[in-house]
Amino acid sequence: MTTFQRSGRRAPDQLRPVRITRGFTIHAEGSVLIEFGGTRVLCTASVEERVPPHKRGSGEGWVTAEYGMLPRATHTRGDREAARGKQSGRTQEIQRLIGRSLRAVFDLKKLGERTITLDCDVLQADGGTRTAAITGAFVAAQDAVNKLLAGGKLAESPVTGPVAAISVGIVDGTPLLDLEYVEDVACDTDMNVVMTGAGHYVEVQGTAEGAAFTRAEMDELLRLAEKGIAELVALQAAALKAP
Amino acid sequence: MTTFQRSGRRAPDQLRPVRITRGFTIHAEGSVLIEFGGTRVLCTASVEERVPPHKRGSGEGWVTAEYGMLPRATHTRGDREAARGKQSGRTQEIQRLIGRSLRAVFDLKKLGERTITLDCDVLQADGGTRTAAITGAFVAAQDAVNKLLAGGKLAESPVTGPVAAISVGIVDGTPLLDLEYVEDVACDTDMNVVMTGAGHYVEVQGTAEGAAFTRAEMDELLRLAEKGIAELVALQAAALKAP
Amino acid sequence: MTTFQRSGRRAPDQLRPVRITRGFTIHAEGSVLIEFGGTRVLCTASVEERVPPHKRGSGEGWVTAEYGMLPRATHTRGDREAARGKQSGRTQEIQRLIGRSLRAVFDLKKLGERTITLDCDVLQADGGTRTAAITGAFVAAQDAVNKLLAGGKLAESPVTGPVAAISVGIVDGTPLLDLEYVEDVACDTDMNVVMTGAGHYVEVQGTAEGAAFTRAEMDELLRLAEKGIAELVALQAAALKAP
Amino acid sequence: MTTFQRSGRRAPDQLRPVRITRGFTIHAEGSVLIEFGGTRVLCTASVEERVPPHKRGSGEGWVTAEYGMLPRATHTRGDREAARGKQSGRTQEIQRLIGRSLRAVFDLKKLGERTITLDCDVLQADGGTRTAAITGAFVAAQDAVNKLLAGGKLAESPVTGPVAAISVGIVDGTPLLDLEYVEDVACDTDMNVVMTGAGHYVEVQGTAEGAAFTRAEMDELLRLAEKGIAELVALQAAALKAP
Amino acid sequence: MTTFQRSGRRAPDQLRPVRITRGFTIHAEGSVLIEFGGTRVLCTASVEERVPPHKRGSGEGWVTAEYGMLPRATHTRGDREAARGKQSGRTQEIQRLIGRSLRAVFDLKKLGERTITLDCDVLQADGGTRTAAITGAFVAAQDAVNKLLAGGKLAESPVTGPVAAISVGIVDGTPLLDLEYVEDVACDTDMNVVMTGAGHYVEVQGTAEGAAFTRAEMDELLRLAEKGIAELVALQAAALKAP
Amino acid sequence: MTTFQRSGRRAPDQLRPVRITRGFTIHAEGSVLIEFGGTRVLCTASVEERVPPHKRGSGEGWVTAEYGMLPRATHTRGDREAARGKQSGRTQEIQRLIGRSLRAVFDLKKLGERTITLDCDVLQADGGTRTAAITGAFVAAQDAVNKLLAGGKLAESPVTGPVAAISVGIVDGTPLLDLEYVEDVACDTDMNVVMTGAGHYVEVQGTAEGAAFTRAEMDELLRLAEKGIAELVALQAAALKAP
Repeated sequence: MTTFQRSGRRAPDQLRPVRITRGFTIHAEGSVLIEFGGTRVLCTASVEERVPPHKRGSGEGWVTAEYGMLPRATHTRGDREAARGKQSGRTQEIQRLIGRSLRAVFDLKKLGERTITLDCDVLQADGGTRTAAITGAFVAAQDAVNKLLAGGKLAESPVTGPVAAISVGIVDGTPLLDLEYVEDVACDTDMNVVMTGAGHYVEVQGTAEGAAFTRAEMDELLRLAEKGIAELVALQAAALKAP
Repeated sequence: MTTFQRSGRRAPDQLRPVRITRGFTIHAEGSVLIEFGGTRVLCTASVEERVPPHKRGSGEGWVTAEYGMLPRATHTRGDREAARGKQSGRTQEIQRLIGRSLRAVFDLKKLGERTITLDCDVLQADGGTRTAAITGAFVAAQDAVNKLLAGGKLAESPVTGPVAAISVGIVDGTPLLDLEYVEDVACDTDMNVVMTGAGHYVEVQGTAEGAAFTRAEMDELLRLAEKGIAELVALQAAALKAP
Repeated sequence: MTTFQRSGRRAPDQLRPVRITRGFTIHAEGSVLIEFGGTRVLCTASVEERVPPHKRGSGEGWVTAEYGMLPRATHTRGDREAARGKQSGRTQEIQRLIGRSLRAVFDLKKLGERTITLDCDVLQADGGTRTAAITGAFVAAQDAVNKLLAGGKLAESPVTGPVAAISVGIVDGTPLLDLEYVEDVACDTDMNVVMTGAGHYVEVQGTAEGAAFTRAEMDELLRLAEKGIAELVALQAAALKAP
Repeated sequence: MTTFQRSGRRAPDQLRPVRITRGFTIHAEGSVLIEFGGTRVLCTASVEERVPPHKRGSGEGWVTAEYGMLPRATHTRGDREAARGKQSGRTQEIQRLIGRSLRAVFDLKKLGERTITLDCDVLQADGGTRTAAITGAFVAAQDAVNKLLAGGKLAESPVTGPVAAISVGIVDGTPLLDLEYVEDVACDTDMNVVMTGAGHYVEVQGTAEGAAFTRAEMDELLRLAEKGIAELVALQAAALKAP
Repeated sequence: MTTFQRSGRRAPDQLRPVRITRGFTIHAEGSVLIEFGGTRVLCTASVEERVPPHKRGSGEGWVTAEYGMLPRATHTRGDREAARGKQSGRTQEIQRLIGRSLRAVFDLKKLGERTITLDCDVLQADGGTRTAAITGAFVAAQDAVNKLLAGGKLAESPVTGPVAAISVGIVDGTPLLDLEYVEDVACDTDMNVVMTGAGHYVEVQGTAEGAAFTRAEMDELLRLAEKGIAELVALQAAALKAP
Repeated sequence: MTTFQRSGRRAPDQLRPVRITRGFTIHAEGSVLIEFGGTRVLCTASVEERVPPHKRGSGEGWVTAEYGMLPRATHTRGDREAARGKQSGRTQEIQRLIGRSLRAVFDLKKLGERTITLDCDVLQADGGTRTAAITGAFVAAQDAVNKLLAGGKLAESPVTGPVAAISVGIVDGTPLLDLEYVEDVACDTDMNVVMTGAGHYVEVQGTAEGAAFTRAEMDELLRLAEKGIAELVALQAAALKAP
């Protein structure tokens, strides 16, 4: 079996160049531009001193996410969801995933009755926008938490550890890490994996786009994902060390 | 470690009683009431001789799904989505999952330029509505295809094999097959698995509700799911054999 | 003039077989499947310990209804109203009618500050869905009230008596009781009548679909309706006597 | 039993002063301001040379209606439906009624493939807006038809005769013709009747607001309505005779 | 250069006949029909003893406006915004302009915590609907304020002076005052000017429909507008003097 | 009168530092990040080979704009318009203004039957987002046109010249050029001016936020705007000269 040839001679188990720019915009408590190759997502963390109805009076906080894509983030212009008057099913699915992923590393009791909203807006898309969003949103959330700690609003961090995400998939029989757009379109199986820094699973979402996939294929994909996420967690830590 | 005690002395790897009633309503080309214990979903398959815009002129058909829950299918009354004016993110996520799962066993070229719509409406909910919906929708779709074959509208079946789905999860450290509502609420990890009759994966969606889960836990859950789905596929076949 | 021939040799003044199944689903305080021949409507009564804004602090309760039709309850698939994002004028008209009809036999002061919501969902349609819905909703509402009485939440029943509804119409010059779908489509005049057990009118809605109708025709239709409703009220009482 | 005292010493079977002003605005093919006492409705008839999808290619035309109420047509300001983003159930019910009523006196084949839209906008409300709207819309529609005949677009009138509407009700035991607002609020039974010039029924919609009503009461109400409509039809004819 | 010939031999700097009818409808605290030639707008002022959230507890009141156009106010029938489910961008732009213009002559502190809503509904359109609306809304608002003063609810008027508006534009090189519809369609530059009775600017909105306009042209347009507004302010005062 | 002190010792007639970055994203035919001090707007130009209905078959093209603001572009998080389900009046007003401004320098006949959509998304807001959007959108549009010319799809440029926009206002009696957020909030009069490279007006929108403004004040503001726009046009030209 010949191996699928990736752009830029990327190895099957290699991430695209990842860049994490903190403080990309000035107003948000956390603001991170994350780039996975040509995919660029602006992740902001906003802290508000109130919680949604289902948490009122509980002493607990809430972490939630919203996701959007600028109309021309993609090859051809997409509808503006605000103009169309509703968010697509895909958008809602992604923002629910980001929210669950971030809550997985938050102790909501320690957060107190406040909300952190992660806005993940795709400025440019080249595959893997949801995994970039989760990975970047964690850094933005950590910055927001650090600001709360520094301001004396929190005595103890509600963050239990890092969380990151990556896509994996099988293209022409080759399992690949971190799919870019042309690979995503061509792949038979597409899996998004969200893991904690401790190497445990938060979300696994595997979908057979073409033929159903075997257990052996799944095992290989999970192995790739684990490798990629370990690298992303290291990159998050490095980015957060900078002043 | 003590094992979680299931209602009705159900074993951890045991399905709830499954009942598949074909021809539950009279107008649809396929109409199946599927019951997983207290969960009851009416799945109808409707054949229409037209396709959505992205398939027009392609010679291919389309298979899609819509999902709904009657307001009082649950313990407390939920909003009627038609009255609220929009489908929730959860509803959209589920109907997209059902659609993808059914398309995984359809050769759209062989279907010709027509659409099969699977409407899955939950009459009574007790956990596992989406997996019951997929499992029942396959039977309704097969009935609709059989009608097209019998009517001479199709020369050859576009169905490549059965598809079924089941939920698995970890409650109090015990991996369980086919979660009912109280187990679903209590579980740390919740996974929905969709597989073909050949034992290959169509979808795997695992979510850590509480603590992140380990690879060993995932392996155990996948093993349980495989067992359950094999049983469901047998039940589908038995139901379809009846006149 | 020859008389219009009804399916199954039904006489012009004869109801279709009516079946009332209480406890059809388990969660609602009242849950009734009512069948008028091929028309099947699931009516659930939900009790909630709050009232809408216009009744708050009044000491009075509220009774209201919502109506829906599963997309494939009919010969050809209809749009799902939740997906389209709004309820049709027809749906709103029907649910307002059901609500008014039920309130006509409720003493809202005796109900106390709580709401009973009647959800009437058509599983299968063959004409007369709104009249079946009203007739079944009364039984579900009575079951819910009985549960409140048994639980000590009400000292006295707020129900002043039964209410039921039937359609009548003129097809090919013949006045008919309880129109099924093919008759409904063919009729010149269509009338829905809602009456109390005491034989008084709650609603009369007559519409000339083709030629306008005379006073003599209306009198004949009212006579048929009165007969039908008396039979329905007896069937409701019989169903409610069962344990 | 003492008789309910009406404002301005109006007799129980007396209409309010009715005024029909043709040509109230200049752009529409028919434009009528109709006044039933303090109720003032602007009815315009617009002719468009196209039909809705269900009539395309049928050779038949269509007659339809839309209804609205200016926010401050009433004692207290109501929401503007355009701002709220949807029409209420009441609005839809009324505009469907107006449309059916007008179609009852139109031969759609003779109209040809064109649409007449009746816009009925309430400038000031004092009870009976829907019956005033129907009565005025007929005059506007007739004006539009006359213009089509005069312009040679129609060889023969599609109008089969006049149609008018009135409300009747029982207040404090007294049956009354043409309810104004304070009577409408106080009434036990409220009935809207739509009749042709030939004295046949197009619509009868009776509702028990309080106690259910008897057959004798209905007969009395129908008698009052018949009298009122005969007078309205004469007023329509007189208005249409003026140049 | 020949001068553009206006209908009815109107001079370039001449207003159309303006008519202001107070008390046009009976329920609103202020109700004015204003006519600029063929343009007729019903402006009602409604007083409500509450303020929107951003003013609650501030001790200040609020003045706001809504704008609508009846579907057949224009040459060809337009969509009913309530039926379409949203207000157009044009509608929102206009109602925001009316609201700002009126607030410019209100001391919100003196108004106290109440809201005056100006509903401006176009019954017939022939150009200049927004300027007629502002000019008429002021008269309606003044009437509402006078009622509050007379009723002892206000000790002192919150109105700081009159406000009025007019359109100006350049057609075929000729600057014109108060454009009617055919002029509006033909003009290169269109400007709406809102001024106080003291001759100061509240809003200036100039738009080049065709070629961009020069400073000299703008100066000429502003001169025309100033003349027109002075006349409108005099007409408002005269109308308000009548009982 | 003391002069208002601007941040960074900016002179009253001085623009903030302006930065125009072409090619900010890769997919759009034109993609410009424009910065007016802390205000950063991403403007993309998308070319599509179709026109809206009102231009079909006309041989003419169309130029239109959409505007959005990321939820956390501002000091406190705003609602996401896509989630709320509609664009605010402010958003619609701004996008209509951008569209008109760009069309003012396009010869739609020369564009041919294609559409250029300008998407202006605010990444960070500090006053003047609409004027930055117009100024940046022109550069993006010019880049898209250049691509059409280079690709041989256009023989001749449809662009008649540059267009740019700036805000001016009066704060504490001092007329200021290019208001930043704190100045915008504090100003009495706020004016947005759009001009061509030839120094002619495309749009003038002046609003008295507090007291109405005099003709002398308007003249001074227009003078400032003219100066600022001349500088912006030079900056656009310089940016477009770079490869």
